[in-house]
Amino acid sequence: MISKKIKTALAGSSAIRAMFIEGKEMAAKYGAENVYDFSLGNPATPAPKAFNDAVIELAKQATESDSVALELHGYMSNSGYPEVRQAIADNLNKRFGTDFDFHNVVMTVGAAGGLNIIFKTILDPEDEVIVFAPFFGEYRQYAANFDAKLVTVQPNLENFQPDLVDFESKITDKTKAVIINTPNNPTGVIYSPATMQEIAAILEKKQQEIGHDIYLVSDEPYRELVYDGAKQDFYTKYYKNTLVGYSFSKSLSLPGERIGYVVVPNEASDAEDLLAGIEISNRTLGFVNAPSLMQKAVAECLEEPTDVAFYDRNRKLLYESLTKLGFTCVKPEGAFYLWMKSPVANEEEFVAAGKKYNLLMVKGSAFGCAGYVRLAYCVSYEMIERSLPAFEKLAKEYNL
Amino acid sequence: MISKKIKTALAGSSAIRAMFIEGKEMAAKYGAENVYDFSLGNPATPAPKAFNDAVIELAKQATESDSVALELHGYMSNSGYPEVRQAIADNLNKRFGTDFDFHNVVMTVGAAGGLNIIFKTILDPEDEVIVFAPFFGEYRQYAANFDAKLVTVQPNLENFQPDLVDFESKITDKTKAVIINTPNNPTGVIYSPATMQEIAAILEKKQQEIGHDIYLVSDEPYRELVYDGAKQDFYTKYYKNTLVGYSFSKSLSLPGERIGYVVVPNEASDAEDLLAGIEISNRTLGFVNAPSLMQKAVAECLEEPTDVAFYDRNRKLLYESLTKLGFTCVKPEGAFYLWMKSPVANEEEFVAAGKKYNLLMVKGSAFGCAGYVRLAYCVSYEMIERSLPAFEKLAKEYNL
Repeated sequence: MISKKIKTALAGSSAIRAMFIEGKEMAAKYGAENVYDFSLGNPATPAPKAFNDAVIELAKQATESDSVALELHGYMSNSGYPEVRQAIADNLNKRFGTDFDFHNVVMTVGAAGGLNIIFKTILDPEDEVIVFAPFFGEYRQYAANFDAKLVTVQPNLENFQPDLVDFESKITDKTKAVIINTPNNPTGVIYSPATMQEIAAILEKKQQEIGHDIYLVSDEPYRELVYDGAKQDFYTKYYKNTLVGYSFSKSLSLPGERIGYVVVPNEASDAEDLLAGIEISNRTLGFVNAPSLMQKAVAECLEEPTDVAFYDRNRKLLYESLTKLGFTCVKPEGAFYLWMKSPVANEEEFVAAGKKYNLLMVKGSAFGCAGYVRLAYCVSYEMIERSLPAFEKLAKEYNL
Repeated sequence: MISKKIKTALAGSSAIRAMFIEGKEMAAKYGAENVYDFSLGNPATPAPKAFNDAVIELAKQATESDSVALELHGYMSNSGYPEVRQAIADNLNKRFGTDFDFHNVVMTVGAAGGLNIIFKTILDPEDEVIVFAPFFGEYRQYAANFDAKLVTVQPNLENFQPDLVDFESKITDKTKAVIINTPNNPTGVIYSPATMQEIAAILEKKQQEIGHDIYLVSDEPYRELVYDGAKQDFYTKYYKNTLVGYSFSKSLSLPGERIGYVVVPNEASDAEDLLAGIEISNRTLGFVNAPSLMQKAVAECLEEPTDVAFYDRNRKLLYESLTKLGFTCVKPEGAFYLWMKSPVANEEEFVAAGKKYNLLMVKGSAFGCAGYVRLAYCVSYEMIERSLPAFEKLAKEYNL
């Protein structure tokens, strides 16, 4: 007696999550040190000490004052504490030259919560949401939650930048939203300013043609994770109808805490309706508000640097080692994923072969792009080192 | 360019939340001590010290060990930490003689999150969900999220127990779920064991007749809040297709933290599919998992008593004072709401009259039951004392 949608979902559930569980089972069987689990984007560098210190200080003040305890763990506006939202606006303005205040920022239950309340606010059934393959597979579920249809744009297989000719051809009068995710999961690619300008120009032109707004939904959990001196960017600058979803999961290593925010710039069409709709959606979809103590704790850590060096070291080791073994990989510019070409067209066969050596990789088809695999290198450096002999055997098996 | 559903929602948003905001504005204007805000179910007794101590200890351990920090703030199963779920199962078994283990318990983003993932798992569009008026108005939104239809059963106006004749007549072959909420928001009524047995008997009979399961969804945020020696109950004992949603918001005064759980008993039809569907829904609806540190902190506080005495003192003062002034009220048996008859049929007029004396009450029609108002007495005792002269003026205005 479960619903039809869930029946379908049970049949084809998340490949990433399934592998996360398989990895735990393999670790129990072979010993954790003998399993090389590159499946899940679960940070392996801990939250900064400043974050736990902030939690301790907030909870300590609550034990000393009833009114602090009531404020710390109580209801606030469904959009979050105004002072937390203002702190985030100030931080963004300082870093990116934007001009937000608290009312442009809504605190959310992670980026997943943020994207869902954005979608609930803008999507009607049968609307189309464009994604650039390869893409985070959960977007499919988020669009389906509101009976919208996901439309996939093919990548340029040379560099995994989006194919903008294909993009333009996919926009119809049903297009309501376009998702971008840069630095990208699963490719590690960053969209260049030129790419962003072209995306914006195409959207401006198409909005005129079809006669209604198209929102660019920028999913930015990896914003802080950029390498080789690449500059972080803020995409509301390129296109006025940009709505941003952010999460502290990766930047502060807090994926379990479910804390993030949404930004709606004043220049977006119907900005006030969007903000009111997002606030209502936060409530009615059952989030109610972002976890209260976590809101206050992250507000204390906005200047905390992300541990980019940790991931950069992993990135270099994994990319260089696998390239040397003969695998073809996209060199990551950001995020903590390596996107690797499967030596055989059917990458599921390759993923299965990897498991023989206790290597866990996620099939590219989970990201709408068969023939590739994703390796999450948000793991310990030592695990990557230990995994290299296994990759060597795998390379030999495929005569690389 | 917002969605049609959200456009409608913006027009008729939550009366409770609107009043919460109005109360804050009035407090700024007249001084907090001169506004008597009985609108929102935001606990006025702080979280127990043991809870903040647990948070401090968990965060302290995280500062001392990277692996603890990674575990404390990291991803776990979408259903929550197994040891937290087991602790909750053990606690329920001890208190209620049930027989759950960790796999029957899914940690959720409060009860609102829990109800939404239950609904996502069981509801198809056009399904009917039965509620007993008066009811928490958000149920309307939660059913609408999945395009299901809310069907209202009238109360017995003598005692605000459900009218079971009306209930039986409302069950159709479209009925998929029935919500109960006892101790009840907004009436404070507790369903008697006899009522529960009758509800169960009707559901058993109707399941046979219509040939499919009907799930009883028990929304239990007020389970611990019972007065006059009333016994807490666990409703899976009455009817095997009972799914429980719980929140620590009221029992531990943590409404902002968004932490609760769902229980699916083994004897429910398709229990394994339900659990798998609820886990998937937790992920795909964007919750991903209940906030991680909060999961571990509440697990340390399962034996903490709820501060019932605090609310009981308020209950007695408010109920006795208002009754003495000539108002007709339902004597609350649980929760922290007083349900009062409006002296005029149109209770919106009465609510407006109350505002002249800085009294904030919520109209009964927000709960599907016009002609009444709800007073949330989860406020300070002193505020109730200060409010009494205002209620006296209001009573005089209506010649009580």
